[in-house]
Amino acid sequence: MREPDGLFPSEAALPLMTDLYELTMAAGYFVARRRPRAAFEAFVRVLPINRSFLVAAGLEQALQYILDLRFNGQAIDWLRAQRAFARLPGEFFEYLRGFRFGGDVWAIPEGTVVFAEEPLVRVEADLIEAQLLETYLLTCLNLQTLVASKATRIVTAAAGRPVVDFGARRAHGPQAGLLAARGAIIGGAAGTSNVEAARRLGVPAVGTMAHSWVMAFADEAGAFAAFCEVFPDQTVCLIDTYDTLRGARTAAQTLGERLQGVRLDSGNLLELSRQVRRILDANGAAQAKIVASSDLNEFAIRELLAAGAPIDSFGVGTDMVTSRDAPALSIVYKLVATREADQGWRTVIKRSQDKATWGGRKQVWRQYGTDGRAARDVLGLAEELREGEPLLQQYIAGGRLIAELPDVARLAERARRQVGSLPEPTKELRGTYAYPVQVSEALRTAQPTLAE
Amino acid sequence: MREPDGLFPSEAALPLMTDLYELTMAAGYFVARRRPRAAFEAFVRVLPINRSFLVAAGLEQALQYILDLRFNGQAIDWLRAQRAFARLPGEFFEYLRGFRFGGDVWAIPEGTVVFAEEPLVRVEADLIEAQLLETYLLTCLNLQTLVASKATRIVTAAAGRPVVDFGARRAHGPQAGLLAARGAIIGGAAGTSNVEAARRLGVPAVGTMAHSWVMAFADEAGAFAAFCEVFPDQTVCLIDTYDTLRGARTAAQTLGERLQGVRLDSGNLLELSRQVRRILDANGAAQAKIVASSDLNEFAIRELLAAGAPIDSFGVGTDMVTSRDAPALSIVYKLVATREADQGWRTVIKRSQDKATWGGRKQVWRQYGTDGRAARDVLGLAEELREGEPLLQQYIAGGRLIAELPDVARLAERARRQVGSLPEPTKELRGTYAYPVQVSEALRTAQPTLAE
Repeated sequence: MREPDGLFPSEAALPLMTDLYELTMAAGYFVARRRPRAAFEAFVRVLPINRSFLVAAGLEQALQYILDLRFNGQAIDWLRAQRAFARLPGEFFEYLRGFRFGGDVWAIPEGTVVFAEEPLVRVEADLIEAQLLETYLLTCLNLQTLVASKATRIVTAAAGRPVVDFGARRAHGPQAGLLAARGAIIGGAAGTSNVEAARRLGVPAVGTMAHSWVMAFADEAGAFAAFCEVFPDQTVCLIDTYDTLRGARTAAQTLGERLQGVRLDSGNLLELSRQVRRILDANGAAQAKIVASSDLNEFAIRELLAAGAPIDSFGVGTDMVTSRDAPALSIVYKLVATREADQGWRTVIKRSQDKATWGGRKQVWRQYGTDGRAARDVLGLAEELREGEPLLQQYIAGGRLIAELPDVARLAERARRQVGSLPEPTKELRGTYAYPVQVSEALRTAQPTLAE
Repeated sequence: MREPDGLFPSEAALPLMTDLYELTMAAGYFVARRRPRAAFEAFVRVLPINRSFLVAAGLEQALQYILDLRFNGQAIDWLRAQRAFARLPGEFFEYLRGFRFGGDVWAIPEGTVVFAEEPLVRVEADLIEAQLLETYLLTCLNLQTLVASKATRIVTAAAGRPVVDFGARRAHGPQAGLLAARGAIIGGAAGTSNVEAARRLGVPAVGTMAHSWVMAFADEAGAFAAFCEVFPDQTVCLIDTYDTLRGARTAAQTLGERLQGVRLDSGNLLELSRQVRRILDANGAAQAKIVASSDLNEFAIRELLAAGAPIDSFGVGTDMVTSRDAPALSIVYKLVATREADQGWRTVIKRSQDKATWGGRKQVWRQYGTDGRAARDVLGLAEELREGEPLLQQYIAGGRLIAELPDVARLAERARRQVGSLPEPTKELRGTYAYPVQVSEALRTAQPTLAE
């Protein structure tokens, strides 16, 4: 009987976790001896709906891939056995066997606010090396940038009340749960229910109880009492299994001062939170906090708080970990310049309809106003000298990591300060505000003419 | 300098890839000696927008988890070091050390059409064992069921033309790319660009070329010729890097009969495909197929084909692998019955507002009309005898796998036949059709009264 396959991605499988065309192009460049040095940049053309900025995230996982990418014998044997690869010269497979990334990587640090057209990552390397990174690098950047950006919206709406990630079961698979938790923490979530994410990222693991706990006992009072006995320091009772108001009364009367909190998970959260607050206060459980979950997002939270709902913290799952209203980000990875031996960089551009790109190796400078707020970004050529804070930093030089990687707590702190420094309209939850990103004259001038 | 962490989920981390509350509840049940046999069922309450059915998928990965779940020393040590767990009795950690799932699992086979309220999986086990599975099981079922269901819509719209998965870079991380590829194949995709998915699932790896290939050469003719030299059997040229029509002419004139196809990736695909078809036919490349990509989904494909676009196959990425219009599925896992030693099953239900559930261990029978089409499903108690095909089958008995797991080709064939047997209105891409799911009298009668 065949053993079921969990479809875990492993480090051994890194070379094949890519689109086929990256490998056929690599072979093609090799055989055609087309190996200039190449500069690729990853950026978003257009921001998703209702977003005026993004929070960059996912770079650490992309760097792990770039540094660790090797072609083991298993991968090479598999490739050679494919019809498309069968006729390739043995030298190509020897090349793969010795492959390791030897180029340079520049990137905007995780936790930094970014806008459309701004390169999140620039890779400069032998054309094959740079090409091979595309698919995996994008899959790392896309998800976490999406979730970190979504999380800042939810955290903004919660106005200081803690938001925790409850999304493990709705994320797009087990690894997506880990990656989304990381994005959520960078975007400001105070903790996660995902235990492995908490362990690996060193952030608080949080949780209450499920309906099944309540249903497994003869009655609610017994269920609540039993939980408190085992976990006296974190007795947050789920009170909506049968009737929320009755559940609140039962929890307060059963546990009194020992009740740390209650969780509401269905119904009209505004009305219920008000009534539950009154019940807790009137039954000796004034200290108990109210946690709300149940398909929450930034809009629902803002409405609840605007109406004065006495909710102390929010558990957000589906909407945050899938960035439900904008579940895909189209970061693209485009060749922007090539350099032949003994020559300078040659700018290249793509002109596809509605998908044209700015050629040339770029840098982004952020300029601040006298109030300390971000006033504008300048998108220019990397070799320009412009005023402001250059956002792209070098992470890998000649294939080696040369930058310290901060932990997620520091990345979250960076994101918090970055979002705080934005002009207020940028942070509106609906509509978009065109934060000024100016294209430098030098960058414009460097574009090849249409006659090419 | 800290090494970057790729956040791979590993089999060693299985016990912690869950929500914290599964572990606290497990400890609570253990300490409270609340260990009845429990039956949990996983089901969807409401189908996502524009869906009248779902295609079940993801069971194999859930079974892998259930069979392989162990608590290794590293996981146990970590748990013991957490404040919430520090005071638990040592017996609980001994229990975890010896843990392995010893219960029964029933499920609807992957590739089967399912409707709201129908249990995709039923777990019957010691309460702790059944509870612990929740989070991971749901994360497996949610994504693949979502993607398989989305893929059937796209494949239906393509009306016989091959659809291939181009989504690796937009999936929610590397593993999500693998899982989504599997879902897409079950839902009818003819291949995937994801090499590791192709290798592990034994399905065709497909791909063309990227814009960077074209841009890395002095001109398009040189780029196309170089590719054909290396891959004469699969020369599909990407022709929109500069100007699609000029690209088509260049490809046809450069390669003639050797041109296997061209890919359109931007612009008005209807107009361009018509003009490109003419150019190819007039320039000695009548054999060349037209592949279209560029943010396609079921609606865009249907419109293109209805207007007569001469497109031979479709590469679909973002919309399929993220199920973009409905990127989250809310499969829930609910306790439906408990059984104390020497007693019968006791039905339990949850009554939360808008989230009430049917208690009792259930089976689904599908009844077919004389035309061979599915006519209705009956949702009843597992012990009932009803007419029709019982959909839930036993996969695990006493902790052991007892069913053969088909490969994805057979699952895709099953899904194809299942979708084919549905009433036509069920397959409409917009709106919903209420396929009849009848609740048996015995199931209604088995529900506990509100007085409980």
